[in-house]
Amino acid sequence: MNTQRIIIVGGVAGGMSAATRLRRLIEDAEIVVLERGGHVSFANCGLPYYLGGVIEKRDSLLLQTPASLGSRFGLDVRVNHEVTAIDRSAKTVRVRDLVTGEQTVERYDALVLSPGAAPVRPPIPGGERMLTLRDIEDVDVAMSALSAAPRTALVIGAGFIGLEMVENLVHRGLEVTVVELGDQVLPPLDPEMAGPVAQRLRDEGVDVRLGTQVTELGPDTATLSDGTVVSAEFVLASIGVRPETSLAVAAGIELGSRGGIRVDDQLRTSDPSIYAIGDAVEKTDAVSGEQRLVALAGLANRHGRLVADVISGKTIRVRDAFGTAVVGVMGLTIVATGWNEKLLRAKGRDIRVIHTHPASHTGYYPGAESMSLKLIVDATTDEILGAQGVGGDGVDKRIDVISTAMAGGLTAADLADLELAYAPQFSSAKDPVNMLGYVDLNAVEGLTRSIQWHELAEELEAGAVLIDVRTPREYADGAIPGSINIPLDDLRARIAEIPERRLVVHCKVGQRGHTAVRILAQLGRDAVNLDGGYLTWSAGISARHSAAQHGADDQRASAETRAAA
Amino acid sequence: MNTQRIIIVGGVAGGMSAATRLRRLIEDAEIVVLERGGHVSFANCGLPYYLGGVIEKRDSLLLQTPASLGSRFGLDVRVNHEVTAIDRSAKTVRVRDLVTGEQTVERYDALVLSPGAAPVRPPIPGGERMLTLRDIEDVDVAMSALSAAPRTALVIGAGFIGLEMVENLVHRGLEVTVVELGDQVLPPLDPEMAGPVAQRLRDEGVDVRLGTQVTELGPDTATLSDGTVVSAEFVLASIGVRPETSLAVAAGIELGSRGGIRVDDQLRTSDPSIYAIGDAVEKTDAVSGEQRLVALAGLANRHGRLVADVISGKTIRVRDAFGTAVVGVMGLTIVATGWNEKLLRAKGRDIRVIHTHPASHTGYYPGAESMSLKLIVDATTDEILGAQGVGGDGVDKRIDVISTAMAGGLTAADLADLELAYAPQFSSAKDPVNMLGYVDLNAVEGLTRSIQWHELAEELEAGAVLIDVRTPREYADGAIPGSINIPLDDLRARIAEIPERRLVVHCKVGQRGHTAVRILAQLGRDAVNLDGGYLTWSAGISARHSAAQHGADDQRASAETRAAA
Repeated sequence: MNTQRIIIVGGVAGGMSAATRLRRLIEDAEIVVLERGGHVSFANCGLPYYLGGVIEKRDSLLLQTPASLGSRFGLDVRVNHEVTAIDRSAKTVRVRDLVTGEQTVERYDALVLSPGAAPVRPPIPGGERMLTLRDIEDVDVAMSALSAAPRTALVIGAGFIGLEMVENLVHRGLEVTVVELGDQVLPPLDPEMAGPVAQRLRDEGVDVRLGTQVTELGPDTATLSDGTVVSAEFVLASIGVRPETSLAVAAGIELGSRGGIRVDDQLRTSDPSIYAIGDAVEKTDAVSGEQRLVALAGLANRHGRLVADVISGKTIRVRDAFGTAVVGVMGLTIVATGWNEKLLRAKGRDIRVIHTHPASHTGYYPGAESMSLKLIVDATTDEILGAQGVGGDGVDKRIDVISTAMAGGLTAADLADLELAYAPQFSSAKDPVNMLGYVDLNAVEGLTRSIQWHELAEELEAGAVLIDVRTPREYADGAIPGSINIPLDDLRARIAEIPERRLVVHCKVGQRGHTAVRILAQLGRDAVNLDGGYLTWSAGISARHSAAQHGADDQRASAETRAAA
Repeated sequence: MNTQRIIIVGGVAGGMSAATRLRRLIEDAEIVVLERGGHVSFANCGLPYYLGGVIEKRDSLLLQTPASLGSRFGLDVRVNHEVTAIDRSAKTVRVRDLVTGEQTVERYDALVLSPGAAPVRPPIPGGERMLTLRDIEDVDVAMSALSAAPRTALVIGAGFIGLEMVENLVHRGLEVTVVELGDQVLPPLDPEMAGPVAQRLRDEGVDVRLGTQVTELGPDTATLSDGTVVSAEFVLASIGVRPETSLAVAAGIELGSRGGIRVDDQLRTSDPSIYAIGDAVEKTDAVSGEQRLVALAGLANRHGRLVADVISGKTIRVRDAFGTAVVGVMGLTIVATGWNEKLLRAKGRDIRVIHTHPASHTGYYPGAESMSLKLIVDATTDEILGAQGVGGDGVDKRIDVISTAMAGGLTAADLADLELAYAPQFSSAKDPVNMLGYVDLNAVEGLTRSIQWHELAEELEAGAVLIDVRTPREYADGAIPGSINIPLDDLRARIAEIPERRLVVHCKVGQRGHTAVRILAQLGRDAVNLDGGYLTWSAGISARHSAAQHGADDQRASAETRAAA
């Protein structure tokens, strides 16, 4: 009997999950892992925190070694070994030992490509000194640069990983500027959700530049597209990653429409002996059914295990990807899954949007923290299309529950019925996720119509009257220009004061607004609730204002911020 | 047009949710809430924490007043008003004003019963001084008793609420004894999950007496069923609640098989003009389809809203109940949903049980806390029947995800595919819930067979060889009697040492054991993994030992604890 020989290109996350699972499935297979870098199975998601000093020991990042994997799983793990070419007809790969320079040819029966994705480096004059953070070698270079004790840092890109870098450089005591080409931080979020994150960064002393590019790097400065020059002794780029496809392309393996390696539902590339997994591979989006690039460790690990199953002869089912993600920034937890409102509106989808501002647990038990949640729903089917959250304790719990509901095919209204664990220090009798379901039900049943913060200006222009049902004290502390204050508890008594016109009502978060709409509607009035209340409106308008201030060209923003001034 | 008149009996949780929802649905209805106690809408789940001083202000417990509910929702809320009889043919209730003694008769078109459940008081000589905790009046009495500065307290009953009482009395500085008739604390859990909770209580100085009753109360002592006398200056009973059905029974309304008010799928009692919700009502169990009493605030609130929908003319769908619950005890978070192993085995269900001991987040990021999870699955369909968890940070998150998966009809294997939010401080790339799915998949696919901690003795008796694949150092620190230590990494090399017999392998938590079983099975051996490893086995055996020590009569316990000694 010929022993099966399996070669895996790339020994992190997906690649190593595949290798260890393969051993558990096929004891007598020869399993060779070829890793270009000097380490396998390292904690790539921990790199920013090692940079920031939160993770103190470099060894903590090194979860396995070639020796430990060899003894436990009988794997032939070779670091500093780069696969330079695939000969598909001969079923061989050419391998270069990056230490000795020696070249060898290795035979395979099955080949698994798990090369990952490389950080994109913006092409900037002087950009040679710009660092990126992908592997242990990168983090060693960055730590060495930080040992020169720079006082200022520039982070290019304000996505999830970019903000982790900012967080950690601030934690190290550096003065940090973050430059983002888009008009908000955290592009997967909608602006009214991302706005408070940018505000928090600014409150913590970070210089956040939106709608801005770096045009040139000097020895310890950076010139920005608005002409300003900022101090930037340490520069890190985090503007995204690009799938590592050169090896596949050179071998004639097909790519997909998004530039990643295309695989079928059994993780096979266009060559049936070659499989691919991880960040280099396109996934199927769970919401749109389209192909998508999504670089997430969870999916890489999961697909690593699945590809081992396929190679061992099983038939697998690869689930479509929602892209659930979380990041911690300056004490805020920020989460997202599925699609955002921006993308869905751009696609012309008929959606319903819900904003809430609940507490992490009952208000009467000490330590409750506030959060903002957003749910995006198909207006016809009530399918959950996406969700976002920003806040303190318990935000990660709520996105995991929603993501699970999406995987289970539950509708938004079904969220009302979820039985979530409740004691006063953990939640409320109606958990924030239940509340999203309740609000959705009110819309489904036609009880309360609502409008979004970005639709208010148009409503007012068309002649609607805006009624603020908060208390006079809340109103005095800040109100939407042009609103009339009639507290909820006075609404029935003062109904004669309210003009017989289209009415938009609002409170702080939307809950009293809902009751007000019910009162007005039952009294025969045409009333809608401002979804998410004053808090969502303020966050949205501030985000626009901030984007406009920092160069983002948005007509609506300048119009509304004038109105809000 | 006649105005509809709706009377609601009971103004807490379900009753008040019904009332406020009714107002939002029917602006012109007359809605009368009759509450026997002095307060409505108070924070009943907060009472133990007010007792313990965690919630400092009594006012924090009073969420609404009759006046605030009157002005906002136009509700006629009458506290200290007891409904003493229902005349179903006349559609009236007789009401007594408990302050003035005045009796009136009130007409209704629809009547909602939300009377709740009363704490059960064990009939003990001297038991008059025993307190219970249901409402504000009770907590006032208890606070008054505590103001006399007792040094010792006795809590009767170690269920979820009983342990909240223990926690809070310890927090106040009292020396606490807790007495439980059953052979473990927290009866909804299985013994190996509850054992570590009892241990934590003992570590914190609580005197935990299992398999024990209080037989008599003296002025400041209690006599227990084992003859010992303990100091008990303050005595609180928490042995469960009994549905308040006397009003319904007197009116000829039917009860269900469990002694709660029986309602149909539209929350109607046997009288179509009378509805019932909350703790007094039987629910349908989501796992068994049987009727069940389950006293949970979330369900009461949900059903309150639903009954309002029915009364306003909608058709509702009431979901079956899983009974998801959480409690915090001495820094541990303890959760459960669905059915436990004890009950399912007693019913003869063919089940698969999985124990894991994951960390709350990646080990390389500081502050990870350990937890123990248990998943119980239908062996044929892979349906999730129940789950339990004990540990630190993030246990509540995992039960909420599992509960949501159950609601969405996901199988245990589907848990592997959940996309849960991952960054190093929040989870692992394979979240603990994913890992439960991975372990289940290994069983579904027949890769690794496992046995439970309580099945080990029988295996060994039948001649199986027990192999401990942990490191020599782990083995030296404590091992299962009779086991042979062959570390996982040496297993292939030392295969000749292993007898050709039935093999049970184990590690610390079950993961290395799984790899060992795969190696042995592929080498042609008959090997099974001890599920949950040494940790689960130790917890189970300790729980038995502790139960036996404290009088619980369990032959297996004494046999196994001798073996473990």
